Amino acid sequence: MSLSSTRVVDVRVTPIAFRDPPLLNVAGVHEPWALRSIIEIETADGRVGLGESYGDEETLSNLGKIKPLLLGLDPFDLNALTRAVYSQVGGEPDTGATFPPAGDKARASAVGAFEVAFLDLQGQILDRPLYQLLGGAVRPHVAYSAYLFYKFAKHKDDPGYPTDTWGEVLTPEQLVGQARRMIDTYGFGSIKLKAGVFAPEEEIAGLRALRDAFPGYPLRIDPNGGWSVETTRRVMPLLAADGLLEYLEDPVSTLEEMGEVAKFAPMPLATNMVTIAFGHIPKTIQLNAVQVILSDHHYWGGLKATQQLAAIGRTFGLGISMHSNSHMGISLAAMTHVGVTLPNLTYACDTHYPWQEDEVITGGKLTIKDGVLAPPTGPGLGVTLDRAALAQLHQNFLDCGIRKRDDAKEMRKHRPDFDPQRPRF
Amino acid sequence: MSLSSTRVVDVRVTPIAFRDPPLLNVAGVHEPWALRSIIEIETADGRVGLGESYGDEETLSNLGKIKPLLLGLDPFDLNALTRAVYSQVGGEPDTGATFPPAGDKARASAVGAFEVAFLDLQGQILDRPLYQLLGGAVRPHVAYSAYLFYKFAKHKDDPGYPTDTWGEVLTPEQLVGQARRMIDTYGFGSIKLKAGVFAPEEEIAGLRALRDAFPGYPLRIDPNGGWSVETTRRVMPLLAADGLLEYLEDPVSTLEEMGEVAKFAPMPLATNMVTIAFGHIPKTIQLNAVQVILSDHHYWGGLKATQQLAAIGRTFGLGISMHSNSHMGISLAAMTHVGVTLPNLTYACDTHYPWQEDEVITGGKLTIKDGVLAPPTGPGLGVTLDRAALAQLHQNFLDCGIRKRDDAKEMRKHRPDFDPQRPRF
Repeated sequence: MSLSSTRVVDVRVTPIAFRDPPLLNVAGVHEPWALRSIIEIETADGRVGLGESYGDEETLSNLGKIKPLLLGLDPFDLNALTRAVYSQVGGEPDTGATFPPAGDKARASAVGAFEVAFLDLQGQILDRPLYQLLGGAVRPHVAYSAYLFYKFAKHKDDPGYPTDTWGEVLTPEQLVGQARRMIDTYGFGSIKLKAGVFAPEEEIAGLRALRDAFPGYPLRIDPNGGWSVETTRRVMPLLAADGLLEYLEDPVSTLEEMGEVAKFAPMPLATNMVTIAFGHIPKTIQLNAVQVILSDHHYWGGLKATQQLAAIGRTFGLGISMHSNSHMGISLAAMTHVGVTLPNLTYACDTHYPWQEDEVITGGKLTIKDGVLAPPTGPGLGVTLDRAALAQLHQNFLDCGIRKRDDAKEMRKHRPDFDPQRPRF
Repeated sequence: MSLSSTRVVDVRVTPIAFRDPPLLNVAGVHEPWALRSIIEIETADGRVGLGESYGDEETLSNLGKIKPLLLGLDPFDLNALTRAVYSQVGGEPDTGATFPPAGDKARASAVGAFEVAFLDLQGQILDRPLYQLLGGAVRPHVAYSAYLFYKFAKHKDDPGYPTDTWGEVLTPEQLVGQARRMIDTYGFGSIKLKAGVFAPEEEIAGLRALRDAFPGYPLRIDPNGGWSVETTRRVMPLLAADGLLEYLEDPVSTLEEMGEVAKFAPMPLATNMVTIAFGHIPKTIQLNAVQVILSDHHYWGGLKATQQLAAIGRTFGLGISMHSNSHMGISLAAMTHVGVTLPNLTYACDTHYPWQEDEVITGGKLTIKDGVLAPPTGPGLGVTLDRAALAQLHQNFLDCGIRKRDDAKEMRKHRPDFDPQRPRF
């Protein structure tokens, strides 16, 4: 085929809003609508590459500025994509020599948003599933974990969509019930608890109940930086007893504090908060602050950057797992394609996917079974857009009024005096 | 096209020997014949992917053991290639979690040998030059440096091939003459001196003469670990005067010693001797022992591994350049394809290419002009085999009797008491 036929001729970024349950975390509670952007990159010969990213105003603004610069690009020219992004999104000038820490997350997020669509196109052009372009699979599927949340029964202002059937989850017994349903439905083999909501001892009692109900299941807890170093020290005996935890995720909220905790924590520390760009890695290593990096192609810069991160992990003996925000099937497909290629993806990955009722891809939601998902088998990502669903979810975005996630504001509808400051405990 | 048509059906590894001048280094002097292996991987539909690696007995034995396991593989499945290599080449078992230091160089060298041929096939299947599959170019060409050697006028046992026209080079004046010819012929914009042959002060006098003859040309010196820490300390004022050096390459021979030198060296230290596998990087960083890594896809594990190394370099602020052994155009094409994709390849790369009269690719030697080379424009590597040349160079291998490079043995033909021990000075 001629190269001109595969040039980019159109770039569409469609903000969407999809229903999200009232899930609790240290910052407050999920709003009724989660935002996301769906990226379509179309070539002259009519192929459409898909990507998915954040739906907040800053991201949409960045992606909008970059869009016109992508016209005419070759979908294989990822370095041209990077140049286009760096020319439009702030931060230090790119010297090439180092990854600039300042501005890196916004840039890397923009690269990641479009890079997945470029790679999807590459796979389509080659008529091969994407993981094959990423070096081939080292495993047939990616393991995901049951991602448990404390939650309210319903949103304060009920948007009127179908009843959330998960009910209220505020006690250890309710947590076990949520885990049971998650595991019965999806076959998950490990469990993560989003924490930082209640006093640590209460949440650890929840973990204990999970351990009793699901012996042998690796457990994790993620207070999202909601604890102080001293609080973490106080509860460490409870967390460490009987090897309760597979890893402890972001108990505290700075790299230096994580380094402090690492000195007395017998289990690995994981993060998606303090080491979130390549520029953070040297200090992470120097402080031995983190033993497991929760990668996320959305902000590390795409799937190739995720592979580079994993290679750094192998080099320094850091474990690799994956972080998730509320997302649709395009992101899940991308996570899964890259996940099967990473030799050191030795932990089950996080996904909010079971919490989402909506979907934007043809055929509805991808099916996690036995706790794992294989990459879709079609060319590229192997997923296509359900345009009616996209139109509906875009209409939701227009109607819902939310333009930037604000879990604290939502929580204040329940508890007017809610203060999201960290550490809470 | 069907996947079965692009499966590997034949793998050929042909050892070759090509003429090499009597170039001096700390280990002795180059033998009349340099060894190399030419790798061909053929698919069912008759495409041939090319690679080039070492030609010593150990490498040939390793590649031979791996060969049968590559039959039937998909050229896109680089992870399957890695598994095949790890199953046959020694070292610690691969846990996936870390790069095992032990055995890593032999494994990575075997992966690199075949990976380039796999990538060449991928480019041919896509009908695109290889650099496009590696993310696209950040620069149009790769800069190479004038690689100067002290040398004898001729080998002790002249193999009878055309007269080496470079003559004897043992003095500063002769060095300047060699550099003049190199620069006049190829347009090189920077200069590297292979050192460790004479006392450091003599070699630095050579550098000084080069600086006077070529003001503004970045200079480097590489004693190949031939100096002690104390010697390096003694001559540092001479090396540091007037910013004489762009970087100082491997003055000493261990990582710990490089760390010692780094404490008093005002210029960056470069290496292709102490940091030669991913497993060496953590200690390199910890000791701040090296500021420029001379990458080499032949032993780092291929072109993708070179990109991972460069990403680690960006992450930790390490410069990246390239190391070279005596090589043919297949290696030069591979170096150039990956080189144009690396944002932080901010130094001119080493190449022995001007010292080689023979060539194994169709059309003869690639042409370095104005000190740079652009990647060949054809699909994949963009080079093809000259089968008559290959047959001749293989016959040389069979006839020359050399099976393992031994510069010290060759030097003892000139100086029977030669002792290659390091540090020499």
